[in-house]
Amino acid sequence: MADEREDVFDKMHEECGVFGLWGHPEASQLTYYGLYALQHRGQESAGIACTNGKVMSSHRGMGLVTEVFAGDRLAGLKGSAAVGHVRYSTTGSSNVLNAQPLVFNFRKGNLALAHNGNFVNAHQIHDMLEKQGSIFQSTSDTEVLAHLIARGIYSTVTENVQASLGMIKGGYALVVLTDEELIAIRDPHGLRPLALGQLGDAYVVASETCAFDTIGAEFIRDVEPGEMLIINDEGLHAERFSASSREALCTFEYIYFARPDSDIDGYNVHLVRKQLGRLLAKEAPVEADVVIGVPDSSISAAIGYAEEARLPYEIGLIKNKYSGRTFIQPSQELRSLGVRLKLSVVKKVVDGKRVVIVDDSLVRGTTSMRLVSLLKEAGATEVHVRISSPPVRFSCFYGIDTSAREELIAAKKSIEEIREFIGADSLAFMTEETMLSAFGDTKMHHRFCNACFNGLYPTEIDARLDKLTMER
Amino acid sequence: MADEREDVFDKMHEECGVFGLWGHPEASQLTYYGLYALQHRGQESAGIACTNGKVMSSHRGMGLVTEVFAGDRLAGLKGSAAVGHVRYSTTGSSNVLNAQPLVFNFRKGNLALAHNGNFVNAHQIHDMLEKQGSIFQSTSDTEVLAHLIARGIYSTVTENVQASLGMIKGGYALVVLTDEELIAIRDPHGLRPLALGQLGDAYVVASETCAFDTIGAEFIRDVEPGEMLIINDEGLHAERFSASSREALCTFEYIYFARPDSDIDGYNVHLVRKQLGRLLAKEAPVEADVVIGVPDSSISAAIGYAEEARLPYEIGLIKNKYSGRTFIQPSQELRSLGVRLKLSVVKKVVDGKRVVIVDDSLVRGTTSMRLVSLLKEAGATEVHVRISSPPVRFSCFYGIDTSAREELIAAKKSIEEIREFIGADSLAFMTEETMLSAFGDTKMHHRFCNACFNGLYPTEIDARLDKLTMER
Amino acid sequence: MADEREDVFDKMHEECGVFGLWGHPEASQLTYYGLYALQHRGQESAGIACTNGKVMSSHRGMGLVTEVFAGDRLAGLKGSAAVGHVRYSTTGSSNVLNAQPLVFNFRKGNLALAHNGNFVNAHQIHDMLEKQGSIFQSTSDTEVLAHLIARGIYSTVTENVQASLGMIKGGYALVVLTDEELIAIRDPHGLRPLALGQLGDAYVVASETCAFDTIGAEFIRDVEPGEMLIINDEGLHAERFSASSREALCTFEYIYFARPDSDIDGYNVHLVRKQLGRLLAKEAPVEADVVIGVPDSSISAAIGYAEEARLPYEIGLIKNKYSGRTFIQPSQELRSLGVRLKLSVVKKVVDGKRVVIVDDSLVRGTTSMRLVSLLKEAGATEVHVRISSPPVRFSCFYGIDTSAREELIAAKKSIEEIREFIGADSLAFMTEETMLSAFGDTKMHHRFCNACFNGLYPTEIDARLDKLTMER
Amino acid sequence: MADEREDVFDKMHEECGVFGLWGHPEASQLTYYGLYALQHRGQESAGIACTNGKVMSSHRGMGLVTEVFAGDRLAGLKGSAAVGHVRYSTTGSSNVLNAQPLVFNFRKGNLALAHNGNFVNAHQIHDMLEKQGSIFQSTSDTEVLAHLIARGIYSTVTENVQASLGMIKGGYALVVLTDEELIAIRDPHGLRPLALGQLGDAYVVASETCAFDTIGAEFIRDVEPGEMLIINDEGLHAERFSASSREALCTFEYIYFARPDSDIDGYNVHLVRKQLGRLLAKEAPVEADVVIGVPDSSISAAIGYAEEARLPYEIGLIKNKYSGRTFIQPSQELRSLGVRLKLSVVKKVVDGKRVVIVDDSLVRGTTSMRLVSLLKEAGATEVHVRISSPPVRFSCFYGIDTSAREELIAAKKSIEEIREFIGADSLAFMTEETMLSAFGDTKMHHRFCNACFNGLYPTEIDARLDKLTMER
Repeated sequence: MADEREDVFDKMHEECGVFGLWGHPEASQLTYYGLYALQHRGQESAGIACTNGKVMSSHRGMGLVTEVFAGDRLAGLKGSAAVGHVRYSTTGSSNVLNAQPLVFNFRKGNLALAHNGNFVNAHQIHDMLEKQGSIFQSTSDTEVLAHLIARGIYSTVTENVQASLGMIKGGYALVVLTDEELIAIRDPHGLRPLALGQLGDAYVVASETCAFDTIGAEFIRDVEPGEMLIINDEGLHAERFSASSREALCTFEYIYFARPDSDIDGYNVHLVRKQLGRLLAKEAPVEADVVIGVPDSSISAAIGYAEEARLPYEIGLIKNKYSGRTFIQPSQELRSLGVRLKLSVVKKVVDGKRVVIVDDSLVRGTTSMRLVSLLKEAGATEVHVRISSPPVRFSCFYGIDTSAREELIAAKKSIEEIREFIGADSLAFMTEETMLSAFGDTKMHHRFCNACFNGLYPTEIDARLDKLTMER
Repeated sequence: MADEREDVFDKMHEECGVFGLWGHPEASQLTYYGLYALQHRGQESAGIACTNGKVMSSHRGMGLVTEVFAGDRLAGLKGSAAVGHVRYSTTGSSNVLNAQPLVFNFRKGNLALAHNGNFVNAHQIHDMLEKQGSIFQSTSDTEVLAHLIARGIYSTVTENVQASLGMIKGGYALVVLTDEELIAIRDPHGLRPLALGQLGDAYVVASETCAFDTIGAEFIRDVEPGEMLIINDEGLHAERFSASSREALCTFEYIYFARPDSDIDGYNVHLVRKQLGRLLAKEAPVEADVVIGVPDSSISAAIGYAEEARLPYEIGLIKNKYSGRTFIQPSQELRSLGVRLKLSVVKKVVDGKRVVIVDDSLVRGTTSMRLVSLLKEAGATEVHVRISSPPVRFSCFYGIDTSAREELIAAKKSIEEIREFIGADSLAFMTEETMLSAFGDTKMHHRFCNACFNGLYPTEIDARLDKLTMER
Repeated sequence: MADEREDVFDKMHEECGVFGLWGHPEASQLTYYGLYALQHRGQESAGIACTNGKVMSSHRGMGLVTEVFAGDRLAGLKGSAAVGHVRYSTTGSSNVLNAQPLVFNFRKGNLALAHNGNFVNAHQIHDMLEKQGSIFQSTSDTEVLAHLIARGIYSTVTENVQASLGMIKGGYALVVLTDEELIAIRDPHGLRPLALGQLGDAYVVASETCAFDTIGAEFIRDVEPGEMLIINDEGLHAERFSASSREALCTFEYIYFARPDSDIDGYNVHLVRKQLGRLLAKEAPVEADVVIGVPDSSISAAIGYAEEARLPYEIGLIKNKYSGRTFIQPSQELRSLGVRLKLSVVKKVVDGKRVVIVDDSLVRGTTSMRLVSLLKEAGATEVHVRISSPPVRFSCFYGIDTSAREELIAAKKSIEEIREFIGADSLAFMTEETMLSAFGDTKMHHRFCNACFNGLYPTEIDARLDKLTMER
Repeated sequence: MADEREDVFDKMHEECGVFGLWGHPEASQLTYYGLYALQHRGQESAGIACTNGKVMSSHRGMGLVTEVFAGDRLAGLKGSAAVGHVRYSTTGSSNVLNAQPLVFNFRKGNLALAHNGNFVNAHQIHDMLEKQGSIFQSTSDTEVLAHLIARGIYSTVTENVQASLGMIKGGYALVVLTDEELIAIRDPHGLRPLALGQLGDAYVVASETCAFDTIGAEFIRDVEPGEMLIINDEGLHAERFSASSREALCTFEYIYFARPDSDIDGYNVHLVRKQLGRLLAKEAPVEADVVIGVPDSSISAAIGYAEEARLPYEIGLIKNKYSGRTFIQPSQELRSLGVRLKLSVVKKVVDGKRVVIVDDSLVRGTTSMRLVSLLKEAGATEVHVRISSPPVRFSCFYGIDTSAREELIAAKKSIEEIREFIGADSLAFMTEETMLSAFGDTKMHHRFCNACFNGLYPTEIDARLDKLTMER
């Protein structure tokens, strides 16, 4: 689960979570709770747009959902349909203008867009639109899509959305709200998750099913890759806007991003993680006394590892839950405190023991290095690091903020060199093949995108694509 | 671990955490991190007082440590000695005047007091002081102690502190700061925890050892019941202010309050909890498919139960980590969402399963009732509730905010009646004897206070004692 | 001087103040002080955009300049050129998206616009742009202009600005900032004021000259109606974008809006007001004991009246200076306090006296009614109301928020009926002719717009124009 | 009127304003409006305590009344009696613990104290109380009084208040609230003002009568020097706690502190000021073209001067009304802007003119120097400074924050030297005798304290008395 507002943890970052609802008198409040359940997908900004069929009202701001909607900010959002968004903070573009949902007024009325993902050809479209005289207030590629929709030649928003999607490449889950309907869209490869649920007579869509459970809605099914759901007062209408492509579901959603209680495309996140732990124990066993996990996202895998290895699973690391945006960073004199402020070792658990520490991923290696050192200080006689995913060697261009390629330690160093760097007694990653076997039936393995491990991107990638130019 | 600012969880509440440090140039910043580690002991208010040997500066406010010291509020606290405090929110007396440390000026100079616990005869002393003309600005019994110290007849603060303690009965951990010294005190029964550590040449005291780990200090030893440590530029001097009484360490610190990585009086909290889980599995076994725990404080016990019972331990409940003081409560229409906003069931883990759910304590029974119902909705075929402590039948008067006695379900109902109330297929508590055996050597069992289970209070109790009159 | 954030005073409201500066290393800080001097022109929102020639940074928010730029918000605005804006709060569209300057990115780079005034044909252009696929994020007509500029066919921003202005009708003062230049524009009739100044090598433009005095800049000249100043590193270049039209300077800037220390189009505001008072005394004399003015904007006229009438001028009304956005409105029980909370009568000044009270304008008559009543309660034997402007009978469409026509008391009632309504012993307005004579040479009288008095609008007016549809 | 939160103006500062009310269901809201009217007497902190006869609730904080009671902070203050306080910011002791009313609990119940003034023997009493074991949480002498009252030997609060006052020397207006009564007290010399009013059946007391007008209350009479009013449900009872001393009403209340609409001890502030201006014109006439005043407090005197001198009175200086606590101070590069940010010259009024500028007082001379320079830059050919009070040569110890004696320019320099320092063409102060004649009947002249002019203090003064030790 992606969870820290400060970047002490050596993790990739999800960009966003989206939520939409049609047909409930408490639409904005339910959206608030839905976003609250999706908060782990983005802590920089939050926003909700709501329509009563005529007037679209919206509020967005920097901070957690609970902060952005403090006081009576929710009270002004009236109507029975709403769309919401949480956004992850990427360095350098922290600006309320980039907060979503973006809300526009155009010739067909009001339009609110909430977007998780990335358009890999946003540059080209942006340039074309600029040449035609478009103006941009944000650096988000979502604004690019809004322009395409507004310039569409068809008479209905739906048709223009569909036509616009034809021009766009990338990974995305989109929720579009107009005064007449709610449109939910998932990219042709299914790179970003999106699920459909029902709450009484209302329909609801969300990045993860955990949002359904929180508001008491029932899961119906995942939105299919290349599918577009049009929801309005007459009900739900599904259509495909893209011929079937090869599926490319993001494995990292299971490994790290999603909440353990979410089910994505048929798999429960916790159970996949636990299975990854079991498989890791088989693939990379080690003589040890105790297994611990790095909280919170690696706990499931650590439990699986321990069960398979028949070693005791212990709580060996405690994470402080009270961090916030105002946390005072240590002064120069106290810089060495570093990771201790976030994670504490349970000494009596590791003292004198050979410890297996399970982490779900290793990106730059810095946190692992510090954890190994903390564990040894606490008396661990051996520290064996086990990573429940393959080495991350390539950047992601589908809405995940990996570090730039040159910062990915596995892009530059061998596993043995990494082991040396982090100071572990042993280090093992998982092979891609083993990882995929956690999803069961091997015929299904082609369903996943593993580009960050193997560089096989499911779409073409614009050479100019990097976040400094487009700032996504 | 006591952790929610909103009271959806059916738990007893700790009142405070204290921290003190003498002899480090970054005293106030280290105290900030120390309090940050102790934040689970109190989320209502926080404060720090700091001295440079001449001037004592302080700041305190309502909210989390990170909120109270946002901006540059820490910058004004200069000096090499400091004392800090976090306080739990009790209804009706949320007032910054009750925040600690209390700072006073009296004839011998400046005095800051940080206090965890409760003086059971505070009323009598308060009345006596009032009769002699004392004035009170807060409702805290800490102010009562300040008056006693200030009126002392001896020439040193230390002697007057010692004399004042002679008048006081109850459970307490106290840290007193003057411009010349830091005094750390633990009540004669050891009802509230207090530990001593070292950071280079500096001494540090804290309610829990997790604060030492966070700032990189080394644990030396627990402050002994009835002991008073005087720390100044000449070093540390320990003396007893009370003849030895029977020890009465609070078992609830292990069961629920303390952080798993803390060691208290020689026992690691996580390991005690895990052992409680194991013993519970022996004492109250049940045919089942899966064991889950109520996050966060019951996870250790659940793991222990699963290990002993040779059942799979799973993550079956997820707690939302992003709650905060500004969380919007559901409107009347959505009231039924209730506990869902805080806890989500991992459906695939419990669906079609016989579930054992381990919780560390059961106070009013309301949360257990809702959890059983959530689990059944999610498809659990049977729900067996196992509590890793005995039934709570009596109020605590030593600094713990139990509900009033009439709200304690076990004070009024039999276990079978409680089972019926919460709707579980079976319910078991732990016996007191079994609980104590988790601490090993049975000769040590007399060391603990179990008054909330058995009504055997280690001190006399003032009949008038209840929080409405004294409003702790 | 337009000055109250709460609408207890019966006044028309200015919409905005603009400021721009090119060529000073402290551009954003000087803009901050410039806006601070222009704060009386708008208290709802404030904003500054700043460029260093490559990067354009901006910040805007709801509230006073000092509130919006509290903390270190100014620190991020780096560069030697800046544009700033303050905006008046009109009911119903309080939204940070309407705050200015608007900042856009388009094919020629960055563009910031600050606008005071109103485009009377904004609807038509907006509709045309929508048909061509434009999308709008705010309800301001400034965004309409940005679209026109971005779609321009010329190669330079200046040419496209000029071409866009050809399509626009209305009253406006505009400051446009790009990374290469600052453009200052005043509408062909000169309906809204705009002045040019110099600070060392830097050029500065502002709605009123009081902003120059505050930052120590020297006044050069007013921007002429229909003129466009292009300022860049090579200096200042002036050109006309419109053939000469009849001038139509807004008389209300002198009567009420502007600060007394500002000079507009050659006339000092205080001196014009004082002269209006003198002329009013001649035109509408009355036997009385004392002359008082309604603070703050009517003081100059009251002094002039007293001088001419050879009556003592006294401070008879005191305005509370400490009101703010958070002022608690009286509960139902205390509703009668009303205007007392803002204005207090100096009893000893009026008790037993025949009082002349001079006010600069009378729009709905409600405040005058309450003041007459307060004065009588305080013992005034007679109250004679003298208004230093003609009756307001028509709405303004050039950036002033008059009430809707049906709320203008003079549009419905005769002067005698108004006198009766407000309860005065006598009431006199000024004739238009006399008012104009305050500006001296009668040949100059054609220079002014008096549409709010006489309905003679200098431009065509779109029948649809009202703030409910366009929500300015 | 004392009015700036930032110290650009060269003025003495009032310390506080007090307000009390007994017998109205909206007590706290009326107190809020009363304090709002008294805001000019103190802008650092504000507070209200309210009782319903049993429970005393209070809130206080740093900032303006409107800021401290923003949101629903007033809602919690229930009851029909209240006391309020505003406090001026003195350097070095800005601390919410010093905010008033101080609220204490002691053996006779609750006690709230609001205090304007200073006890000149507070040190001695403080030392005595400390020796007897008292503890202090603030540095205010009000806490000293609370201790005295609490230690009193009598059975009623009133008697103990009375006995305590016998020990205290100084200048003070005090309002004391208990659950049973409201007590209003004015020191034996009447150094600080305090007035009594009535609102229906309720009694109200306030530092200035402007508070009565704001809430619609009627003025009854001033509280007499040495008088104590006891107000409870049975009505009002007045008694003397001190034999008659010589009256010593503070002339500076009229010269500068009070609001022009207030009447103090029978004299209206505006009328006294205007008369001071007239007398000044007689005593120190000068050939000139125009008279201007320094806003806001000197306007009345300037009008009087102009009338008497038969010169035109003009608005020559404009003060910015929108300053606030968050005002960004100019960077080093822009330091020269200085006083311009607060005051602007109306150039057309002074250009080419011989200007008389009237100021109510001159303390350090720095602001006068800057104003003379601004006026000359704006084209004034001569600048004649006229001060409507005598030179300030001595510190005040009765609740006024004069600068320390060494900073008072008139304590060190002759009038000619001061003229040279400020760069004026001529400078005149008023003689003490002439000043007193503004109050009419010369027999009354002994009624006033002019210690800041002549050093004749009406009480003994403790040699140790200065704000560094007692921080008042």
